Formats: sequence, C-alpha cells, structure tokens
Amino acid sequence: MITELASAAGGLNDRLTELLENVEARLQAAVRSPEPDIDELTRHLAAAGGKRLRPALCGLTSFLGPDAANAETEISATVVELTHLATLYHDDVMDDAPMRRGVVSAQQLAGNSAAILAGDVLFAKASSLVAQLGPEAVKLHAVTFERLCFGQLRETLGAPDDVSPRDNYIHVLAEKTGSLIAASARYGVLSSNGSPEHADAVAEFGERVGVAFQLADDVIDIMSDGDVTGKTPGTDLREGVETMPILLLKERAAAGVIDEDGQRILDLLAGDLGDDTVDESVALLRGHEVMDDVRALAREWSDSAIDVLDPIPDGEVKDGLVAFARLMVDRIS
Amino acid sequence: MITELASAAGGLNDRLTELLENVEARLQAAVRSPEPDIDELTRHLAAAGGKRLRPALCGLTSFLGPDAANAETEISATVVELTHLATLYHDDVMDDAPMRRGVVSAQQLAGNSAAILAGDVLFAKASSLVAQLGPEAVKLHAVTFERLCFGQLRETLGAPDDVSPRDNYIHVLAEKTGSLIAASARYGVLSSNGSPEHADAVAEFGERVGVAFQLADDVIDIMSDGDVTGKTPGTDLREGVETMPILLLKERAAAGVIDEDGQRILDLLAGDLGDDTVDESVALLRGHEVMDDVRALAREWSDSAIDVLDPIPDGEVKDGLVAFARLMVDRIS
Repeated sequence: MITELASAAGGLNDRLTELLENVEARLQAAVRSPEPDIDELTRHLAAAGGKRLRPALCGLTSFLGPDAANAETEISATVVELTHLATLYHDDVMDDAPMRRGVVSAQQLAGNSAAILAGDVLFAKASSLVAQLGPEAVKLHAVTFERLCFGQLRETLGAPDDVSPRDNYIHVLAEKTGSLIAASARYGVLSSNGSPEHADAVAEFGERVGVAFQLADDVIDIMSDGDVTGKTPGTDLREGVETMPILLLKERAAAGVIDEDGQRILDLLAGDLGDDTVDESVALLRGHEVMDDVRALAREWSDSAIDVLDPIPDGEVKDGLVAFARLMVDRIS
Repeated sequence: MITELASAAGGLNDRLTELLENVEARLQAAVRSPEPDIDELTRHLAAAGGKRLRPALCGLTSFLGPDAANAETEISATVVELTHLATLYHDDVMDDAPMRRGVVSAQQLAGNSAAILAGDVLFAKASSLVAQLGPEAVKLHAVTFERLCFGQLRETLGAPDDVSPRDNYIHVLAEKTGSLIAASARYGVLSSNGSPEHADAVAEFGERVGVAFQLADDVIDIMSDGDVTGKTPGTDLREGVETMPILLLKERAAAGVIDEDGQRILDLLAGDLGDDTVDESVALLRGHEVMDDVRALAREWSDSAIDVLDPIPDGEVKDGLVAFARLMVDRIS
C-alpha cells in the first residue's frame, strides 16, 4: 500500500521512502525498554511490522510546507504510530484477541494486566516524544487520544437514545479511526511549517478517509478469503460487533422492507454465535445487496475526503492523497 | 490528613485550603464528558472523593517559589490527581476490585473495557491540561507516567534473576507510587518559578515519601481493623501480592533462620488462599516480629525523605513537608 502511495506521489518517492526508513528506526528505538522482560513486551507489536499508514500520510503532507520531511516530521510520524500501537494493545485486551499481525497478541503472551500496561508505556513514550514538538503538537496529541478513547467508549456503551445506530456508528469510526489519521495528516503540515488552511484541509481529509477505511473493513470482514488475507471471515459478527451491513439490515427490518435472507441473517445473529451460525450468516451476507450499499457508502466517504482537498494545490502531494483515499476502497472492488 | 498538613504549614493554611478548593472545582470540571453514559463513568472516581494528597503536596511546595499558588499550580495539581485517578481505573481492572473509595469500582459498574477506556480518557484529559504548561511540565508528565507503568509492569512480571525480591519491591514502590508523588512536589516548585535546587530536593523527598507510604500500607493491610478503616485485613495476601512482611519472612527462610510461626505463614500462603488460610496468616503475622521490621523500614524511608530537605529553608513549607512525611508512618504507630 505504501509503495502504491509513494508511486502516486511521483518524484517524492525517494524522499518518502527515506523518511519512512528513519521513522522505522526511531520507532524501533522508542519501543525499547531497559529490562529484558519489559522490553520483549513493549517491542512485541512494533517488531511484528505493519503498514505504517499513519507515518506515510504524515510524511506525505509534510511536503505541503517549506520544511518537508525534517526531524520534526519524523518525530511526529513516530508519535502517531506509537499511539496507534498503544491502542492495539488495549484493543486486544478488550477483544480478547488471540492473534495480531500474524503473531500471538501481547495479552495472550503476558496476560491482560501486562498488555494494558505495555499499551500505557507506549502511550507514555509517545507523550515523551511529542513533548519535544511544542504546545500545539502536544495539545493535538492529547485531544486526539481523548477522541480515540471516546470513540471506543461510544462503541462499547452503544448508541444513546436520541442517536440512530447508523449515525452513532459513523461517529464511532470517525473518532476511533478517523481522529488519529486526521492527526497524522495535520502533523505533517505542522512539522513542515505549512499553512493552517492546508493543515485543516488534510485533517478533515484524514478523518473522512478513516471512516472510508473502516467501512471497507466491514466489507472485508464478510468477503475476505481467509487463505489469502489471513483474516477469518465473519470475525466481527462472531464478536457480536454490529458492523454497517448488519445496521443496514436492521434499518430495513425496522422499516418493514426486509427480504427473507436478510431476516434470516438477523435471526441467526440474535441467537448463539457458534461456527455454524456465523458461517451461514457470512454466506447469506455475501450474496445480499446490503453489501453493495456498504461498498457505496465507503466510496462516498472516500470521495468526500477527496472533495475537501480543494485548498491543496495540484501536484505530487495531492496526487498522493487522492491515491491514498482511493486505496482505502480499492481493497473492496 | 490534609487538615493536619495544613495546620503544620501554619500561616499558609488559608491559602492552601483555598487552592485545594479551586483544584477540586477544576478536577470535577475536567472529568465531565459531553454524553451522560460516558460522563457517569469518567466522573465516577473523582466524585467518590479521596484525600487529594498529591494536589496538597503540589500546593505546599509552590510556596517555595516567588509566585505561589497561581493558576499554573492549580492546573498542575489537577493534572497529578487526574493521572492518579486514571491509574486507579486501570488498577481496578488488573486487581478485579469490587470496591474503590467506598463505591463500586468502575470495572464492576461498566465492565473491563469501559473501565480501561475511562482511565485512558482521564489520562488524555491530564495530557490536555498539562499541554498548557510548557514543555518542561509536559515532559515531566510523560516521564512520570512511563515510570508509573514501569513500576506496575515490574510488579506484574516479578523480579529479574539478578535482582533480589526486596530490592525489586522497593524499586516497584518508588516507581509506581513515588514517581507521581515526586512529580507532584516538583510541579509545585516549577509552577511558582522556584529554584531547580528546590525542585530536585522536593522531588527526591516525594519519591522517598512514596516508598514510606506504601510500606506503611503493607503494615495496615495486616494490622487494620476492618470496622474502623473499611479495609479488609489481608487483602494483599488474598490477592497473592508479596508485600514486605512476606518478603522478609522469605529472606529469613532462605537464610535458615525462620521461626515456627513464620514458616507456618509461608506454608499457608503457598497453598490455596481461602478465607481460613488468610485469616490464620493475618493472625500469626500480627504477633510476628517481621511487622516491627517493616514498621522500622517505613520510618527509615520517611526519615530519609526528611533528610533530603536540607536545601529547603526553615519555615512553614519545610514544617509542612516534615509533617507530611511523618503522617505517612504515624498511621502505623
């Protein structure tokens, strides 16, 4: 994915690649801890790799300012990836996840308490790094982390009475995923002394891209071929997460316009969630037209992300951002 | 406790009381969240009260600088208490605690995930507040949080092979409790533009006081009368925590100088930890001389905290600090 992004960004390719190598070195250094036991735990997820989507976006938007890809950009990109990793540790505890990024999850490795604390340590390391970048960067980090937690809490606690489940869900996606992608894009502009107008535009872009990314993930959860992607189809369903396809089916049911297959899916998911139930739901969902609706929604969010790039001048950065937004939903074509 | 501290601080009493009222208002405002469900959760622990030991210490040391008890002091004091509360949310998840401060714990109220996230939200709010105070304050907050997590991790993972259990335990206490008390004391001096020499002295003082405080807690865990203190005697033992009395017994056993009662305690705790086992261990420990050894250790740490106050001029602040250190261990006389 990063390769495609860099190639869309044309002449920036080499400089972006070099930046990301430096960020990787900073990241691997940041997750080190002085004692072997703790070190193993705090390095665990960073060592397992990952797409480094957020650092790539931060690096790319830094080319909107006069001082592109400097040390401050590298630190910012490290901070957003560290923060992302910290949330993954906590997510794995909350989801009781056995695996993450092809390796056993930290919580399986060392228990819930150690995994919670390792996530906290990474967040503390991100805070230490961002403290070098001045008050605006620190404030952005704190507010972003607060939004991340709010999104996750909103998901855990469910929609308030006066908010529709679909609106609540989009709100959750914007907060828990959009907020950190938005911050990554903003950090790039901030670090290179770009204009506030550009910073606002790419932040709004990042927020919308985050929603598109998660909606695409909802499609992938149903459509993925486990052998190819390494993801077990229906993982969200199995965990009782009401993803967008299910919310759309429920809307149809509430409006009295649901078809037989759709009702069957809802009935299956309302019962005990065994392998058979989930497998049948996945099979029925794959042929159901709500999946097209979710694909269309993901594309709408990706297009709307591109729409807010108007203030950004034409050129390699904008091309890279457009490619970035399209990549989110190309995964589901 | 705060009353006794303020009274030792003599003429500062009224100003300290006023400062703590302002901090309380800031704290209650900081834990508010825009939505009722989340608000209930994030306010939960702050609303239950508490001794506000860390804000009191921060307020007291601010009188070492020329600009005592200003808005920056209030913000710093709020930040340390918010951070303390955040760790309590995570502690309760790790300990599976039913109660905290006389109210049901957040984790019992809303589940593990919500309690982890609520702790994260409070930490994010602390980060937002500290972002107003400049890079030195931000850095101090991040480093302190990292040390807190390290201490807790070191406790969870146990002593490395080359460190004695007793040294590891003292290290854990210094990190998980001393670090935030040290930061509270340092923030007071920082916020009032006091001297670096004073800041260093009160921070070292706070770290040592933190160790004394926790050692005193180990004594209280055994000696407390549940009807008076609201604490069930032997809670740590029941949870399998090896507090200092147990570590001292194990040292005696390793040196081959343990008495019959001591060996019986170790045997009991090595078996299944039922009510009878814990009750008998507590009864035996109450009459055992290792409790005197732990009391003496707590006093040593409290005295050593007072020793490092040499650079602080005689006067109301120093009197208050000495009283603060003594209060930690007066609880066990």
